[in-house]
Amino acid sequence: MKIGIVGYGNIGKQAENVAKNISDIQLIAVFSRRKDIEINSNAKIEHFDNIFNYKEAIDILLLCGGSATDLPRQMPLIAPHFCFVDSFDNHSKISEYFSVADRQLKLGNNVGIISAGWDPGLFSIQRVINQAILPDCYTQTFWGKGVSQGHSDAIRRINGVKYAVEYTIPNNQILNKVRNGEQPVLNIYDKHIRQCYVVANDNANKQEIKHLIINMPDYFAGYNTTVEFISEQDYLTNHTLMQHAGAVLLNKTSTNGHKYQIEYSLNLDSNPEFTAYVLLAYARAAYRFKKEGVIGAKTVFDIPPSYLSALSQTDLIKEYL
Amino acid sequence: MKIGIVGYGNIGKQAENVAKNISDIQLIAVFSRRKDIEINSNAKIEHFDNIFNYKEAIDILLLCGGSATDLPRQMPLIAPHFCFVDSFDNHSKISEYFSVADRQLKLGNNVGIISAGWDPGLFSIQRVINQAILPDCYTQTFWGKGVSQGHSDAIRRINGVKYAVEYTIPNNQILNKVRNGEQPVLNIYDKHIRQCYVVANDNANKQEIKHLIINMPDYFAGYNTTVEFISEQDYLTNHTLMQHAGAVLLNKTSTNGHKYQIEYSLNLDSNPEFTAYVLLAYARAAYRFKKEGVIGAKTVFDIPPSYLSALSQTDLIKEYL
Repeated sequence: MKIGIVGYGNIGKQAENVAKNISDIQLIAVFSRRKDIEINSNAKIEHFDNIFNYKEAIDILLLCGGSATDLPRQMPLIAPHFCFVDSFDNHSKISEYFSVADRQLKLGNNVGIISAGWDPGLFSIQRVINQAILPDCYTQTFWGKGVSQGHSDAIRRINGVKYAVEYTIPNNQILNKVRNGEQPVLNIYDKHIRQCYVVANDNANKQEIKHLIINMPDYFAGYNTTVEFISEQDYLTNHTLMQHAGAVLLNKTSTNGHKYQIEYSLNLDSNPEFTAYVLLAYARAAYRFKKEGVIGAKTVFDIPPSYLSALSQTDLIKEYL
Repeated sequence: MKIGIVGYGNIGKQAENVAKNISDIQLIAVFSRRKDIEINSNAKIEHFDNIFNYKEAIDILLLCGGSATDLPRQMPLIAPHFCFVDSFDNHSKISEYFSVADRQLKLGNNVGIISAGWDPGLFSIQRVINQAILPDCYTQTFWGKGVSQGHSDAIRRINGVKYAVEYTIPNNQILNKVRNGEQPVLNIYDKHIRQCYVVANDNANKQEIKHLIINMPDYFAGYNTTVEFISEQDYLTNHTLMQHAGAVLLNKTSTNGHKYQIEYSLNLDSNPEFTAYVLLAYARAAYRFKKEGVIGAKTVFDIPPSYLSALSQTDLIKEYL
């Protein structure tokens, strides 16, 4: 399978690196709008404008741009010409994004898999399987401890902020209640705490910055939010990792009174590297769909587990069933 | 979807009960070789020999017999005439069972899904997704605490044993090592402890029974096995539940030195009721395959998550992605 990477940020760089160690995947080119990039493989570096010269040379494109602006702008241009996978993660806009992808892909008889990361992605699969097997189950997703890029970016846009990082932390008291089989009624503000570390410019008004963060609608207002001002050195030394974690929990009591609990949890040292791993497995599925002549937009819900694997059906049955 | 249940043991009875609360599923008939059964629904009760009269009336059969003798005998007879799902769980014979199912199903242009329980089944899905996303990951499955029907049956076949139950218990010291990110080399005997409770007949030689259990090849020899003799009343009061539990754990260190952990764990008050829930969800997938004209044997690896759900693609994307 011959792949290309679009966007050379956190996920794109990791995808390049991960692909080196996967024998059935060959990276052909990295596409970027920037002119000065250096990459870490033998792939070609191309400006985004030259991407359409690669229609025959590349089977699947990995769209590694951000969900806020890159993907909504790039995907509709790419989809009529390439099969692709992406990890679009703006939950509230996925339905709309899916429709655009489906329409644009079908213009070129291509297939694409959207929102293939860990949430949306692997966590979504667990939620659907849980709901399908145990109807009316109680299910909750907890995120963290980990860095939310969206929240960190929102802080950085405040006047006077030089660097900032936001950690989303599950409320352990509530998490443990659910782990103990309780089914508390929760709103979004109960489940998570938002911990912010900010490096302010020299003459910035820290009280004002803190006030703006804590009351920021959609991002922080309503949450238990802490803001701590730290030095630039502290930030650069201790707060540039991209760890993340999370869990999907299910509790169910059947009509017979039997109780069931299922938990799927993960701990990731590098959120972007893990997302790159997921994208590459779903690229395999997209390639298989492409060879079958399947067209249009797909999500993780449409993919049989075997399509993610390089192993044969015989080997999967023998070694993993 | 119109279903039938073949075999009215632990799983069959639970499938009947669970189906009552699932609106897109209608139970038509229960088939059994026994003549004296009473069932707990409005479905028909039929002798197994009359099953072929129902070819038009039933979309999907749930094969709920045991994996030791019932399923290998019944499935080849049924497959040329019906689409089906089962939870065949004899790991060492799955490849052979799959081949027979595939051949017999194709004789009648039918589709069947084998080994759809929690292991094999849901756990198998986790193992395949883990391996596909994080190649060369370290992964371990732990079972228990829970009753192994196969091991309990093996004890009951010993002369002088009236009742017996075997609990498979994970070795917590090793489980915690893996949870802490270690990757110990394990053999099958390290991971689990086998705890046996036996009711002996009045004149039985308990020392001899204990010796036969502990040294029984394939089942107990090599394991850390405990045998305790208990009263009939103790057995009937405290050891007839069918709880089970288990976990699939993954540890991986990437070439960049990043560590990843994924854990999928479940706790089940009733192993047969949960298996019935899983079978009914996979019956939905078999029905969808049938309508698409797909034929032959399938496993959980071949099923997109959306095929398990009664919800539309639009609703799945909006509510679960």
